[in-house]
Amino acid sequence: MADRKTVSIDVRRDLFGANDDVAALNAEMFREHGVRVFDIMGSVGTGKTQLIEAMCDRLSQQYRVLMVAGDLATRIDADRVGSHGVDTVQINTGTACHLDARMVRVALRGVDLSKYDIVFIENVGNLICPAGYSLGAEKKVVVVSITEGPYMIRKHPLTIKRSDAVVINKVDLAETLEFDVDALVRDIRAVDANLPVFRVSAKTGDGIDDLMAGLGL
Amino acid sequence: MADRKTVSIDVRRDLFGANDDVAALNAEMFREHGVRVFDIMGSVGTGKTQLIEAMCDRLSQQYRVLMVAGDLATRIDADRVGSHGVDTVQINTGTACHLDARMVRVALRGVDLSKYDIVFIENVGNLICPAGYSLGAEKKVVVVSITEGPYMIRKHPLTIKRSDAVVINKVDLAETLEFDVDALVRDIRAVDANLPVFRVSAKTGDGIDDLMAGLGL
Repeated sequence: MADRKTVSIDVRRDLFGANDDVAALNAEMFREHGVRVFDIMGSVGTGKTQLIEAMCDRLSQQYRVLMVAGDLATRIDADRVGSHGVDTVQINTGTACHLDARMVRVALRGVDLSKYDIVFIENVGNLICPAGYSLGAEKKVVVVSITEGPYMIRKHPLTIKRSDAVVINKVDLAETLEFDVDALVRDIRAVDANLPVFRVSAKTGDGIDDLMAGLGL
Repeated sequence: MADRKTVSIDVRRDLFGANDDVAALNAEMFREHGVRVFDIMGSVGTGKTQLIEAMCDRLSQQYRVLMVAGDLATRIDADRVGSHGVDTVQINTGTACHLDARMVRVALRGVDLSKYDIVFIENVGNLICPAGYSLGAEKKVVVVSITEGPYMIRKHPLTIKRSDAVVINKVDLAETLEFDVDALVRDIRAVDANLPVFRVSAKTGDGIDDLMAGLGL
């Protein structure tokens, strides 16, 4: 029988209090300008940008949309969304693995928020840290992809607990990858029985309308 | 006039400096016990565990292998590798998005390293932070998957710079996903022209032998 040892290491951080103060100021600023803000989180390559593009395509006739993109480097994502006629702000974090409330505040300096109805903030590609930092958004939406394998929910219960909705993306690949989407939904329900869950393919457009209705868009 | 003293502390330098000191102690400990240690990094669901399973299957007849798994929660990964008859240590980091040298040191307390020839450390699923923290391993190997989309290299040049080898996993899906693996390799070469790059499918076994030869295993 092989040895099987488990060590739990508890790392606590003091940073969250200070971030919450700035997030509250951001939330107040968003309210004052009557703009609805969504913080879109998820790991690298889960399709956050494509999801935002799909929503922008449906919204941009009726609403004025701003997209704020967080990445360590490049402005690939902002440029992709910008090509849909949406205004964009790219935040390059250098080494930081998540956005925080102050970064968003600094990035929006000089931006006239009253020009917009909706802001999508695409967080840095990371399933862990962005969940710990409120940006002052109305909702935190986490995007997972079935290409991430079957365990990403069970390994990241805190991210699920801190989210207001879960989007399961790339469901068009479920058959090819022999992926059990129902099992993934059960894992989410085990963490939070009432959390809204949306099955979508940002690529084919399946489920996008339901997602937007669920977000009140 | 009141004394006004200002002390500037570079938190990041301080943090990384302290980690490097412990990593050096770990490296010395590994050398003393004649054990070769590999730090396997990469985002959630890129197939790090399956890759380690594939290597263990080829190594465990000839070598004694220990697997150290880092996850926020669960011991799913350690148990998967453990089922191949390999000893395992699971580190649960709670909220921390990467392993550091001290965590590895604490986790290996009481483990007789002289019993092993090779240690695979599977880092927390995150393409960003693990690259910043040396664990004292011989090599940092980053695993990316073509299911992460085409931009993960360009967005994360620092992770590539801090790695000793790149594994491109799930190449068996390239055709289905219409993914240009050559373009990804060019992105890697643009960051570091000399970095060893291995194209593998941990699922089918394609490329595993080349990877192991490249790592001197």
